[in-house]
Amino acid sequence: MSSQAPHNTLLIPGPIEFDDAVLQSMSHYAESHVAPGFVKTFGETLSLVRKLFQSSNPAAQPFVISGSGTLGWDVVASNLIEKGENALVLHTGYFADSFANCIETYGAHATQLKAPIGERPSFEEIEQALKAKPYKIITITHVDTSTGVLSDIKRVAEIVRRVSPETLVVVDGVCSVGCEEIAFDEWDLDVVLTASQKAIGCPPGLSILMLSGRALDTFKSRKTPPASYYASIGNWLPIMQNYESFKPSYFATPPTQLVHALHTTLSQITARPITERYAIHRHASDRVKAAVAELGLKQVAATPANQAHAMTAIWLPEGLAPPDVLPGLLKRGVIFAAGLHKEVATKYIRFGHMGVSVTDPARSDIDKAIAALKEALTEAKQAKGL
Amino acid sequence: MSSQAPHNTLLIPGPIEFDDAVLQSMSHYAESHVAPGFVKTFGETLSLVRKLFQSSNPAAQPFVISGSGTLGWDVVASNLIEKGENALVLHTGYFADSFANCIETYGAHATQLKAPIGERPSFEEIEQALKAKPYKIITITHVDTSTGVLSDIKRVAEIVRRVSPETLVVVDGVCSVGCEEIAFDEWDLDVVLTASQKAIGCPPGLSILMLSGRALDTFKSRKTPPASYYASIGNWLPIMQNYESFKPSYFATPPTQLVHALHTTLSQITARPITERYAIHRHASDRVKAAVAELGLKQVAATPANQAHAMTAIWLPEGLAPPDVLPGLLKRGVIFAAGLHKEVATKYIRFGHMGVSVTDPARSDIDKAIAALKEALTEAKQAKGL
Repeated sequence: MSSQAPHNTLLIPGPIEFDDAVLQSMSHYAESHVAPGFVKTFGETLSLVRKLFQSSNPAAQPFVISGSGTLGWDVVASNLIEKGENALVLHTGYFADSFANCIETYGAHATQLKAPIGERPSFEEIEQALKAKPYKIITITHVDTSTGVLSDIKRVAEIVRRVSPETLVVVDGVCSVGCEEIAFDEWDLDVVLTASQKAIGCPPGLSILMLSGRALDTFKSRKTPPASYYASIGNWLPIMQNYESFKPSYFATPPTQLVHALHTTLSQITARPITERYAIHRHASDRVKAAVAELGLKQVAATPANQAHAMTAIWLPEGLAPPDVLPGLLKRGVIFAAGLHKEVATKYIRFGHMGVSVTDPARSDIDKAIAALKEALTEAKQAKGL
Repeated sequence: MSSQAPHNTLLIPGPIEFDDAVLQSMSHYAESHVAPGFVKTFGETLSLVRKLFQSSNPAAQPFVISGSGTLGWDVVASNLIEKGENALVLHTGYFADSFANCIETYGAHATQLKAPIGERPSFEEIEQALKAKPYKIITITHVDTSTGVLSDIKRVAEIVRRVSPETLVVVDGVCSVGCEEIAFDEWDLDVVLTASQKAIGCPPGLSILMLSGRALDTFKSRKTPPASYYASIGNWLPIMQNYESFKPSYFATPPTQLVHALHTTLSQITARPITERYAIHRHASDRVKAAVAELGLKQVAATPANQAHAMTAIWLPEGLAPPDVLPGLLKRGVIFAAGLHKEVATKYIRFGHMGVSVTDPARSDIDKAIAALKEALTEAKQAKGL
């Protein structure tokens, strides 16, 4: 029996359903952030972040900071690129616009390489863009939560290393870390930033980043000071290094309960081979996408290679909008999200299938959601006379 | 019976001991951040923040943002002052240095008005400084956690309004909100920034701010865009306004569980007259300070008018350092903090007496701590042959 109060099943692309033990960690009693007990928990958590990213290179550095995933953009934009320098932003949905906005706030130039909705820039376009101008960083949204489009970050990183080896490869992994394959060292990535509340299965409130030695060197050779205080790598780096060496350290009070919850979920995740976790998510995704096709519906992400494995953005039948369908799902105990990409938000819905909803064999969330979707659509079409 | 696992009593100047119901709110099941249930909780929480600040002026605006208290400095420094403008920073300990550092990160000039350790700048010095140069903002640490020095923010605000009426009065209330008297409207304050984990009694992870209409007007009439993305008032203002009107809104995913915990603790706090809460803290403080005097010890904050009511920074007897005393306290189930002010950190300890440890009549934390302090000091002196 779950220790959680009865509630509708949350199947949006984050926050997601929680494991009982993770939620119980959120109620941890008060601890000093610099006392041995918490220092050990935080230090171990940082080591677990390395495992999550399949990283064993000691030059790489994990960061866990109080804040939302959005804060990770500020960490990149205020530390790894300087005023007047160039960023190439690969656009696969809403989140690229926002990341570009963040980069420009700190004075760098963001050049967006856009694809039509549901697609991603081609490898040829990326290569040409990289050859056209020197870019300090390239940003890639691994999975754009607004469209469900998956990017091939391994392949993009290969192109960057071949064509513009000094460019830092920055991955927005908010909706991918913990469900899509990421081999941080092997793929030679420089930054993966994420948040706690998606496939990692922790409540929201933690900005999590992994930085390569190359990224840290770039930071250390800045010509100007970091452009943020709270997001400054200079302020956080010694803190993370100290905690991971089990030494207390202070810049800002860490969110002790959230760190406990992250420790619990990462311990669970890394107790099994991470490749198994990816396979489980792919398998669940295949089931969802087959069911969507069977209902005669199309996905926003147009081709199988472009489709994320932990969420599905589904075009609604002509004549239906999210408010016609979401209440029918809710009535059946299932919560999906409305569209988010501003040009087409009223035409699609989003189904998140990640974390315990797919990894816990005792849960039947996905079956329940597929059945509910079928019924809610039928009901909505009847109501509209479609 | 408490629902918390047995643990030592945390009596540092934050984080502090929690009420059971607050901790239970941290385990709230997964919710969408834009669904009606959470939108209502967040909206109500913002209204409760107004009550906490005794504010009813609709032009004022509360903010609750995922992050630590430190983030509040970035909100001020990147939105309310521009490059090349001047800030007057009243220095009563460690936190003024850091706030000044944050202000300079964003390009403004910070002039510190320093007092000897344990004291605060005089009203005459403040008035003279304000007359000497136009300052866009003045910052005051209401209680500096490193020294236990209390500032008279009401009186400082009066001086500012008389001498330099356009200067924004910015209060760092991290260690004062919820325990020291603050009348936001009546005292004509412009910003009070705080964090969740001190006298508010919520786990760490929330940056909480209250801004006056004057502060918002200053923001709106900036000549340059905000200098931060994550800390931008422009990004957060519509979100806070929407949630408080019970409309969902998205800039970054809010930390849903922490917001529930804040809602619970603010509901408890505001269920009683806030003046009663201040009186309880003053009374507990008097008891602690009398006991400290009885032990023949002096406080870092030198005069009664300068002494905070929710913490006491205590000079150790000559020949003793924090590691001589803190383990003896821990052995007796009590956790105090070591010194923090870098010039004298090894010479004093800090005792936090706020939140449920003083407001819950069922708890005897303060008696226990006073007894433990007495015994631990005796033991430490004997061990050193003092």
